[in-house]
Amino acid sequence: VPDLRKDPLLDRWVIIAPQRAGRPNEFRVASCARTAKSCPFCAGHEHDTPPALATYPEVGSAGRGVGWQVRVVPNRYAALHSESVLGRSCGGLFESLGGYGEHEVIIESPDHVVSLTDLSDEQAFLTFLCYRDRLRHWRGVPNLASGFAFKNVGPAAGASLEHTHSQLIVMPVVPLTLQSELSGSDRFFRKHRQCAFCAVIDEELERDVRIVCRTDNFVAFCPFASRFPYEMWIVPAQHASHFEEIETAWIRELAQLAVDVIGRMEAVLGRPDYNYLIHSAPFDTSAVDHYHWHIEIFPRTTTTAGFEWGTGFHINPVPPEDAVSRLRAVSQLAR
Amino acid sequence: VPDLRKDPLLDRWVIIAPQRAGRPNEFRVASCARTAKSCPFCAGHEHDTPPALATYPEVGSAGRGVGWQVRVVPNRYAALHSESVLGRSCGGLFESLGGYGEHEVIIESPDHVVSLTDLSDEQAFLTFLCYRDRLRHWRGVPNLASGFAFKNVGPAAGASLEHTHSQLIVMPVVPLTLQSELSGSDRFFRKHRQCAFCAVIDEELERDVRIVCRTDNFVAFCPFASRFPYEMWIVPAQHASHFEEIETAWIRELAQLAVDVIGRMEAVLGRPDYNYLIHSAPFDTSAVDHYHWHIEIFPRTTTTAGFEWGTGFHINPVPPEDAVSRLRAVSQLAR
Repeated sequence: VPDLRKDPLLDRWVIIAPQRAGRPNEFRVASCARTAKSCPFCAGHEHDTPPALATYPEVGSAGRGVGWQVRVVPNRYAALHSESVLGRSCGGLFESLGGYGEHEVIIESPDHVVSLTDLSDEQAFLTFLCYRDRLRHWRGVPNLASGFAFKNVGPAAGASLEHTHSQLIVMPVVPLTLQSELSGSDRFFRKHRQCAFCAVIDEELERDVRIVCRTDNFVAFCPFASRFPYEMWIVPAQHASHFEEIETAWIRELAQLAVDVIGRMEAVLGRPDYNYLIHSAPFDTSAVDHYHWHIEIFPRTTTTAGFEWGTGFHINPVPPEDAVSRLRAVSQLAR
Repeated sequence: VPDLRKDPLLDRWVIIAPQRAGRPNEFRVASCARTAKSCPFCAGHEHDTPPALATYPEVGSAGRGVGWQVRVVPNRYAALHSESVLGRSCGGLFESLGGYGEHEVIIESPDHVVSLTDLSDEQAFLTFLCYRDRLRHWRGVPNLASGFAFKNVGPAAGASLEHTHSQLIVMPVVPLTLQSELSGSDRFFRKHRQCAFCAVIDEELERDVRIVCRTDNFVAFCPFASRFPYEMWIVPAQHASHFEEIETAWIRELAQLAVDVIGRMEAVLGRPDYNYLIHSAPFDTSAVDHYHWHIEIFPRTTTTAGFEWGTGFHINPVPPEDAVSRLRAVSQLAR
């Protein structure tokens, strides 16, 4: 049974999940399986995963029917379970919670492809629609504080299976990074009477040296203080605190922008491993004036050393302005 | 010239250091050089590094003489420079500092060995003595806020050269993680009138389920909320906030304990790549009642995925109590 433990000093939670040690390639991942032969995520192998929680479009028999494009299943090596008891225990200094929550896998294609950019337009749209729907679903369940949809591509990004997939995790606490973002943005709002992200977007659009691409409703840029080479953020141009409140009409535009900027990054860097993660306000708040949902995208071209881990202070060898000029120079043809 | 940039939202600083892109193997590190032939850190190759800042024992001609055991040189691909101008610039939302600071390399042996556990007792002692001396040196220089000694072993830990070495970085700001530790420990102190680390050490010694090893003056344990499998911390048993104030008489004991617990970890996990980092109170404070210096050691057996990066929330498949029982079971003979 997983166990959530709180650092006695920081509001930093850790999931102690021994059952995760059994998942494929947990230790010393060198490369992902390059063959579709034994891939549990490929069409025709639906019985190798638990029954689907949802499929897009809907198909019968717990999503084991033919014709799905995107399919959501429980993670077989879940870090958190909704059957766990939430009970808080506190032995002296050491506080822990039952490993309550949920951990799902979103399989983004019936075909054995590896990146978001390999998807059809429809699959990319359904993937982002699925993030929205699953977060909406879990938001309504009691005792869950926040949820994250994220994607790991390649072994350097922490993926243990090659077939393109995302994960969704919902948990009973608000993790440290999101807490820091919330308090930093609250501080900014009280000082400037404006959302910090909205202010950054305005200034970035005006300066136009770190914008990778913009559409009617979204902006993709490399942040001023990028931690990693070619780090990119996608933000809605208009203020919005909760990703799961996005209208269906905008999802296609968002998915296409994500495919576009990741495609540029893949063209410049030669299809590196990468991660993205959707940052969104906690479930238990209504619309927040000071927080702005966004997607952070990181290619994994550098190894994170002890210094970065220990200090939270990053060394980035590529100025974001240089990254942007290369990302902009990639023509549609080169992709 | 490196540039320090502050995230508009968080007190998170990033060093934008384009010259780091030129260092060996910066991108897509697959393995370190396995040969001593062209190693700039080996005895006889002293002219391949900048002149030494110090050698132990002292040898002539800028540390290029024969007979050194440990040798400190400026990092050729420094993330920060003490010749940089400290000037703060603030264009609208975007705050940056000149890349003022220093970045040094500590070569821990004239021989081509790879881990702290390969050193002689004397070399291990001199290595920790050197951390202390260099931090003492930089602490006296104006405008530097904090300093960190750390070690990366192997490519998964971010090392670009195999020959055993540590790094020391001093900077004009207190990084986010140390700030969080300081404010968390201050909160604890105001509530309990006791240092949180001292309280944890007392409770760990009493419970005795997460102690790896203890000596007269130091304790090594796996923390309750370990983020990584086999994460270990070494702390002084008596309260002390600044590592650089350690007495020379204790350094040998500390070095031997570090060698002992890293040796246990190497025996259990088969010499994994690893990092350690010395956490110490900022330079500009005198002795602090609520903060306790410590060394955090992480073997790099798991890849950090997007979720951990984005949330600061960790998933650890190995309960620290299990790690400790394996680390304790390693006999001296097996090493």
